[in-house]
Amino acid sequence: MRIAILAHEQFPGRAKTALGVLRYGDHEVTAVLDRDRAGERVSDHVPDVQDAPIVGSMDDVGAVDALLIGIAPIGGGFDESWRSDVRAALERGCDVVAGLHYFLADDDEFARLADEHGCELRDVRRPPDDLTVADGVAREVDAEVILTVGTDCSVGKMTTTMELAAAARERGHDAAVVPTGQTGIMVEGWGNPVDRVVSDFTAGAVEEMIVEKGDDHDYLFVEGQGSIVHPAYSAVTCGILHGAMPDRMVLCHRAGRERIHGYEEFRLPALPTYVDLYESLAAPVHEGTVVAGALNTMDVAGDDAAREAVAEFGDALDAPAADLVRFDPDAVLEAVL
Amino acid sequence: MRIAILAHEQFPGRAKTALGVLRYGDHEVTAVLDRDRAGERVSDHVPDVQDAPIVGSMDDVGAVDALLIGIAPIGGGFDESWRSDVRAALERGCDVVAGLHYFLADDDEFARLADEHGCELRDVRRPPDDLTVADGVAREVDAEVILTVGTDCSVGKMTTTMELAAAARERGHDAAVVPTGQTGIMVEGWGNPVDRVVSDFTAGAVEEMIVEKGDDHDYLFVEGQGSIVHPAYSAVTCGILHGAMPDRMVLCHRAGRERIHGYEEFRLPALPTYVDLYESLAAPVHEGTVVAGALNTMDVAGDDAAREAVAEFGDALDAPAADLVRFDPDAVLEAVL
Repeated sequence: MRIAILAHEQFPGRAKTALGVLRYGDHEVTAVLDRDRAGERVSDHVPDVQDAPIVGSMDDVGAVDALLIGIAPIGGGFDESWRSDVRAALERGCDVVAGLHYFLADDDEFARLADEHGCELRDVRRPPDDLTVADGVAREVDAEVILTVGTDCSVGKMTTTMELAAAARERGHDAAVVPTGQTGIMVEGWGNPVDRVVSDFTAGAVEEMIVEKGDDHDYLFVEGQGSIVHPAYSAVTCGILHGAMPDRMVLCHRAGRERIHGYEEFRLPALPTYVDLYESLAAPVHEGTVVAGALNTMDVAGDDAAREAVAEFGDALDAPAADLVRFDPDAVLEAVL
Repeated sequence: MRIAILAHEQFPGRAKTALGVLRYGDHEVTAVLDRDRAGERVSDHVPDVQDAPIVGSMDDVGAVDALLIGIAPIGGGFDESWRSDVRAALERGCDVVAGLHYFLADDDEFARLADEHGCELRDVRRPPDDLTVADGVAREVDAEVILTVGTDCSVGKMTTTMELAAAARERGHDAAVVPTGQTGIMVEGWGNPVDRVVSDFTAGAVEEMIVEKGDDHDYLFVEGQGSIVHPAYSAVTCGILHGAMPDRMVLCHRAGRERIHGYEEFRLPALPTYVDLYESLAAPVHEGTVVAGALNTMDVAGDDAAREAVAEFGDALDAPAADLVRFDPDAVLEAVL
């Protein structure tokens, strides 16, 4: 499938869905739309993912099957400055795939255009309507369950999940990803958008996926969300923790992050505090241990400085650590398997 | 307003909404429907609330303005054995008020009957559609915020909230209740049904209420939900904790409860573990302290045994404790104000 990815004014630093699909998806990406970087290329900014030209609007995109909304603003709203591109895509008969809280299929103009031009609006953040409360049974599956947990949003939980599952498969293990957010769902083609589920069903939505896949694989890598001390999103994090009942956890952090992204009045607590909180909160439901750390060194210039940051991070956690994109995942993978 | 309360096969032990409305609502309760106890009276089972006859069906109910669904099964579904009573109420022109996850207004038969007979279906668990993510500002309100937290579901958080607010008002303080569940909303006539909100908006739904009321009162008593180590509902609990940013917490427990209600394979951790978890999880967002305990001694026969249970509970918490329904709330209220 040939796709274009919309990431206006946010590529690459604040376009984590776009980056995730470029890095892990099996789509052919024809163009990235970012009106602030038109004329540049993906590889000018991110060297180790699928390359594509960056263009200003759908007018500059060649033949594609779908337009994918590759940014996820706080709150998940639809930015009206994207409307002309979505409209243009639908008028060309392209499907539009989005992971916003705002459902494109509920937008009168988009619904009408999709109908007229025979194309599909796919809101991957719309949860199935048969979810219910957890039964408390995720710990019973055969697979070992590994959950990525974080110090904040946008620190690399989805990336870590994907990298670890790929590295485990490369070693011959039968490993599956359990996607819980829009990017993971877009990449894997299935999953429950846990942050969009009714809060009473948060754990249940995760449990349902664990039970569905848990006896067919040796390892399940569960994509975590948010952070257990996030002023807005901790409910989602807590529901995933108790719904997935992980045997092991990998703590994800972004080098240099000291304050909660978008909530700068809140300082991140110390790394050992996160380890204590995740483990002590998990224990009464199912014992799970933080066995390794994944550091996102995207903002650290130079491999030497990045290696130093990883070493410091590992020392603070007293556990193996790595940047799984920049360096070798072996030490983390061994701790996890 | 004259009401009948449906509580088939569950009154009084598993009918917490019915009991809450009998105890704290200002409605005139004409009858309680429980086909297993028809012919008995509320006062045969619960001496200290509004009395009413217990009847088998709507056929035995006199003139009322509304039928209220007073039971909240795990999962929040609609039991088809209740259909004939809801139908009969609507055919008599009564409104029907429910706090289920299943919305009566979306039921074709009920919607048609309500339309034909000019009455209203009020689903109090349907959240407003303008909720969004928390801004992280609840700690900025003038009021002192007091949150009830629990060792499990159905241990007395709503009751404790109501009793403490009433006791504070009796002492001349300006105190308001912030209702987060169906019973509280039915009693108070406003509130957000937090367990039914999109999980990303859980904290935001609570914060919105704190901000709305927080500068108009000296004390806000926030109704907690679930438990922070509940295998199914902890997401809701965590969202309330970080959305409300309480200054003080009251830990609620039910005497004799050793396993999670409905999830009997899970033991409750020790009481000090709960205190540690609630305080350490709150701290990175807003420092809050568990200052007192509320023990529900409903299952303890005899006041002496109940007093002993309360004393043991207070010792385990190392804080003032009481059964606020059975005994004097003074010690707990003083710790809280």
